[in-house]
Amino acid sequence: MSDTELKPFFRSRWVEVPDGVREVPGAPLPAGFRAAGAAAGIKPSGGLDVGLLVSDSDDTTSAARFTRSGTAAPPVLVTRERARLDALKAVAVNSGNANAATGRPGMDEAARMQGAGAMMGRTTEDRVAVCSTGVIGVQLDGHKVVRGLLEAGKALSPEGVGDFQQSIMTTDLFEKRATIEVDLPGGTVRLAAQSKGAGMIQPSFATMLCFVETDAVVSAETADLLLGVCVKRSFDRITVDGQLSTNDTAILLCGGASGVEVEPESEGELAFGQALDALLRQLAIDIARDGEGAKRVGRVSVRGGHGPNVERVARAVANSPLVKTALYGGDPNWGRIVQAVGLALPDTAPLPVDVSIEGVQVCVAGMAVEHDVAALAERVARDEVEYTIGLPGDGFETEVFFSDLGYDYIKINAEYTT
Amino acid sequence: MSDTELKPFFRSRWVEVPDGVREVPGAPLPAGFRAAGAAAGIKPSGGLDVGLLVSDSDDTTSAARFTRSGTAAPPVLVTRERARLDALKAVAVNSGNANAATGRPGMDEAARMQGAGAMMGRTTEDRVAVCSTGVIGVQLDGHKVVRGLLEAGKALSPEGVGDFQQSIMTTDLFEKRATIEVDLPGGTVRLAAQSKGAGMIQPSFATMLCFVETDAVVSAETADLLLGVCVKRSFDRITVDGQLSTNDTAILLCGGASGVEVEPESEGELAFGQALDALLRQLAIDIARDGEGAKRVGRVSVRGGHGPNVERVARAVANSPLVKTALYGGDPNWGRIVQAVGLALPDTAPLPVDVSIEGVQVCVAGMAVEHDVAALAERVARDEVEYTIGLPGDGFETEVFFSDLGYDYIKINAEYTT
Repeated sequence: MSDTELKPFFRSRWVEVPDGVREVPGAPLPAGFRAAGAAAGIKPSGGLDVGLLVSDSDDTTSAARFTRSGTAAPPVLVTRERARLDALKAVAVNSGNANAATGRPGMDEAARMQGAGAMMGRTTEDRVAVCSTGVIGVQLDGHKVVRGLLEAGKALSPEGVGDFQQSIMTTDLFEKRATIEVDLPGGTVRLAAQSKGAGMIQPSFATMLCFVETDAVVSAETADLLLGVCVKRSFDRITVDGQLSTNDTAILLCGGASGVEVEPESEGELAFGQALDALLRQLAIDIARDGEGAKRVGRVSVRGGHGPNVERVARAVANSPLVKTALYGGDPNWGRIVQAVGLALPDTAPLPVDVSIEGVQVCVAGMAVEHDVAALAERVARDEVEYTIGLPGDGFETEVFFSDLGYDYIKINAEYTT
Repeated sequence: MSDTELKPFFRSRWVEVPDGVREVPGAPLPAGFRAAGAAAGIKPSGGLDVGLLVSDSDDTTSAARFTRSGTAAPPVLVTRERARLDALKAVAVNSGNANAATGRPGMDEAARMQGAGAMMGRTTEDRVAVCSTGVIGVQLDGHKVVRGLLEAGKALSPEGVGDFQQSIMTTDLFEKRATIEVDLPGGTVRLAAQSKGAGMIQPSFATMLCFVETDAVVSAETADLLLGVCVKRSFDRITVDGQLSTNDTAILLCGGASGVEVEPESEGELAFGQALDALLRQLAIDIARDGEGAKRVGRVSVRGGHGPNVERVARAVANSPLVKTALYGGDPNWGRIVQAVGLALPDTAPLPVDVSIEGVQVCVAGMAVEHDVAALAERVARDEVEYTIGLPGDGFETEVFFSDLGYDYIKINAEYTT
């Protein structure tokens, strides 16, 4: 897919685009960044599978978030333990092999990848993050990755973002990237993001890769704060299949080429944070929308007086295969939602739960209410479906975005070794 | 399906049939019980949908277990709160409507059903359990149920067990019932069970109905103890889709017609308990095998030094849609198992997890090991597949039986309002 084929980015009704934020056509990198992709023979398809992203400035600051998986992969462990997460300058990625469940040899290959990334990014190893995505449990051929990084290093260019995007994708059906321009009090900055993810997607924060670049001048502390908050409101709120990857990584690189500073606790920080939030939320919803085989995206919003229960219910509904198959079938089957609520909160019966679908109240205080079933059926056959659940009490509210569960999820996952 | 078409009951390698236990062909009721089914127009198909089961003896003792769902249905609440669970004498059931999320009117209908059951079972209401299974969120037409119970009451007979079985089934593809003869020191007794369940199946203990009858003389305390232990080892250890029904109920009725006593802490109690255990385990595995659209059953066995972690890992693997689609595809994709372990135990990386499939070690201490992939692929294409997971430490072990996830699960659940 060429850059010109990218659709308008902000498409979901669940993302509010802040004032002073404009999409930049073609989703280019901000000033001060270069990227490239190479075909190193890791993907059986022969497609691009090694990517390199470099910030030119030595003053680049950064922040990162990783999977919480107990079986986190060597690239995650190496990046987390051997890189300066507040001063990353380059990212080396491969797709087609997750370098997960690969033990000591996997750690060695991740370190070798970090070394090659440093060489081609003209920096030190501790400023290079490494990421892998693909099949679990197969040793990574480090020679191929190094060869790919050498090739990508030579091809690095401000225009290389399309190839970089291709090199990080696996089962994704469409590119998930965008660039936005943000008006701050001190001037205009750009934020760009490239992400991938379609299956093995759940929380804490998501099973995906996302790389964000900005030409704003941002301190490492501010970058960490903003990335943390925005990841919690985006990649941490989506689920395709309730699964948690061994390799999730999100990285924000702040190169500073614009000279526009984002000062802590300033109006500019608020505006920058809101823009980053909108960018990551739309990307997260895109990942749910690209959930393997998905036709529609649901949003479940839960309110109640007990925070952990509100969270449990939202996850239980979003991950219920019965709710997800109903969404796929365009079936307003709210009985399955009540079932999922009951699963999430054992030993609380009778629980006075309220359920609305697309604003139509279907269950009040645990009891079915009359409603126009045909009209509701029409509404749940659209692209985005909203479910609202009320639990007893007040004060807590959360949301989870989720994809449906259809035939293609089975096809992709029963007939494909991931 | 007529009685003679029932296949041999004990088919799983995971069920050990104790000495002195024999299957009784045709799966008849033990002496002292009568049953019937009626077509009351609740199922759109016009099939049998109201069932009645009665023990003739006024001295009948009983035990019961119910769903822990926070949205447990009125029949569960009515039975739990208004029946003498240690002295049940009759069970009134309907299928086609779960009488769940039906509020106060649903409670009234469940109570009315209990009253009709008492009248036809010639006993008091507090000795009647009521159970419903089917669609959630639709008011139950109590007139139909009462009419069905009147008809069933007139048809009650020792031979009515086949009709009774039909009347409790919904999406089940085959009958799940059996009768066994058990040699005890004091003589021979019979145990019969009829169960249903194919979807919305998970723990605590399972989304299903199961009715067990025996002609042994068993105190209510012993019945409660044995049912509790056996349910924990059977219906509590299966999952089809990780979902928890609003209506799960298991009931044991002990009529005593054989005159053979099961004394507490006797050899007879042990033998009776082992027989009940084998009966319920095979039924539980049958429910997983009949998981909506399932081709195969998996058993995941987890060992380790921390009880809750062992349980979490077993549930996470058994409920992982990635593991389940791989089982469906006959794909020995153990990387997905490692993923599920990591999901279950966040923030513990690197975790030295061991994985074997069908006795073939594929991962040791978190690292892939060489194995004969082709041979393993052949083994995981069989009917039953065994996964063994080792976590650090010793002392705890658990198992979960699970069905695969295939196209038909989507078909059944996307195109059918349950």
